[in-house]
Amino acid sequence: MKTIKTIAEAKKFLKQARLQGLTIGLVPTMGYLHEGHLTLMRECKKKCDLTVVSIFVNPLQFGPKEDFSGYPRDLGRDSSLAEGVGVDLLFCPEPQEVYPANYSTYVDVEGLTGVLCGKSRPGHFRGVTTVVNKLFNIVRPDYAFFGQKDAQQVLVIKKMVRDLLMDLEIITVPIVRESDGLALSSRNVYLSREERRAALVLSLSLIMARDAVKSGENNVALLKDRVRQMISAEPLARIDYVEILSLPDLAEINSLEAPALLALAVFFGKTRLIDNVVLES
Amino acid sequence: MKTIKTIAEAKKFLKQARLQGLTIGLVPTMGYLHEGHLTLMRECKKKCDLTVVSIFVNPLQFGPKEDFSGYPRDLGRDSSLAEGVGVDLLFCPEPQEVYPANYSTYVDVEGLTGVLCGKSRPGHFRGVTTVVNKLFNIVRPDYAFFGQKDAQQVLVIKKMVRDLLMDLEIITVPIVRESDGLALSSRNVYLSREERRAALVLSLSLIMARDAVKSGENNVALLKDRVRQMISAEPLARIDYVEILSLPDLAEINSLEAPALLALAVFFGKTRLIDNVVLES
Repeated sequence: MKTIKTIAEAKKFLKQARLQGLTIGLVPTMGYLHEGHLTLMRECKKKCDLTVVSIFVNPLQFGPKEDFSGYPRDLGRDSSLAEGVGVDLLFCPEPQEVYPANYSTYVDVEGLTGVLCGKSRPGHFRGVTTVVNKLFNIVRPDYAFFGQKDAQQVLVIKKMVRDLLMDLEIITVPIVRESDGLALSSRNVYLSREERRAALVLSLSLIMARDAVKSGENNVALLKDRVRQMISAEPLARIDYVEILSLPDLAEINSLEAPALLALAVFFGKTRLIDNVVLES
Repeated sequence: MKTIKTIAEAKKFLKQARLQGLTIGLVPTMGYLHEGHLTLMRECKKKCDLTVVSIFVNPLQFGPKEDFSGYPRDLGRDSSLAEGVGVDLLFCPEPQEVYPANYSTYVDVEGLTGVLCGKSRPGHFRGVTTVVNKLFNIVRPDYAFFGQKDAQQVLVIKKMVRDLLMDLEIITVPIVRESDGLALSSRNVYLSREERRAALVLSLSLIMARDAVKSGENNVALLKDRVRQMISAEPLARIDYVEILSLPDLAEINSLEAPALLALAVFFGKTRLIDNVVLES
């Protein structure tokens, strides 16, 4: 596995690969890799000749009071894990290269970013789309892989790629969960033992809603209420949002006529976790 | 010369060229080609193996009260002119492909776009950067050629390319003028005979300022006043702006310590013309 830290070197390496006709896949990450990331890499390896993983904790997608400085980082461990999966290129750019002095250019996807995490975290998706746009410009992948765990992020990036006519395909990979149901996240390390146990209510509430829909319930207000009640019954949980929105537009709906996204964000202590399921009757 | 109207076909054609190792140059235009455009194409041909010219009258960069629907168009004539210069690919995409249904993604260069034409034409540069970003994503040129006539546009696009780490170089080509000094513009066809004559005051005022600077004048307020007075003495002229700003940041300055941009926008009847010169002592 090759590790590259500068944009110029990465571009040179990838240009060579492209001239050889190799298909390039990119897995953009913020590092502190877990099995969810590794699954993305394995999917990338299956589909592409060259698997590129980027590790970059993107300051622009964190709010001023969020956990940018404390976000977990361990490049040594990440490097071993990526190499173990067979990644070809690990790209770890420096912030001052990704955000050159006096930068003032932003990519915005309007509409889709005004709900869910975009509403709770103003500026978050501007940070995501701007940095992902840059990574796509550097790597020029044929395919890029994102986890369904960040359901809104996938929809926003797909929209950016489509609207800006970018020449690549976004592949969505299902959520990877612990055996007890907790969705994998680099932020899970923040959880105390009690919070870790309490956080199980997230996946359990999604299963409850999914089963209710399968049993014929299609009233969105009622479904959201049932999820909120179940989560609120957990004393350590503090709900940020519980929403059921249309796909892929994330518009409000009253009843389930087509597959829709049940998405939630819940605090356990200072740690904000998200999870989601696609509801299909 | 090949003419292509769909994005998929253009991508396919250009991918082939890229695999052959050809250098690709792009000249983005809104058509109704004049000698200024042809000069861009000739520069492109000198530097690149494959010269691509795009013709697209971009609705997003026109304000609601501007001349989008009336903007001059003549694809037959444009096609002959481009072929005459030896253009390899003429790319004329359809608006519904460039702006797919429900598009909501925009590229913004902040700061630089708050002055000059950005101030007079709110939303104009969002339209320019968004469409040029799309054209770059489709064509993936190694070089793109822009005229110094639209001085602010060149600075904004260079900033976008730098900030978004796009893999191409912007080449600026000097202003082409009629023998009497009028800068070439597709909008010159709007001018009546009297307006055409009156418009000469633009290039004359730029020459006057340039000479004053060469003679030692470096007071920006005084230089701007002299240009404004000269233009105002022409009864058919109505000034939109006359500004002298730093390069490349377009910041306000009080005196000329380094090369700076003298830029102006002036109406003759309903026609708004722009012109500029770089002042160097």
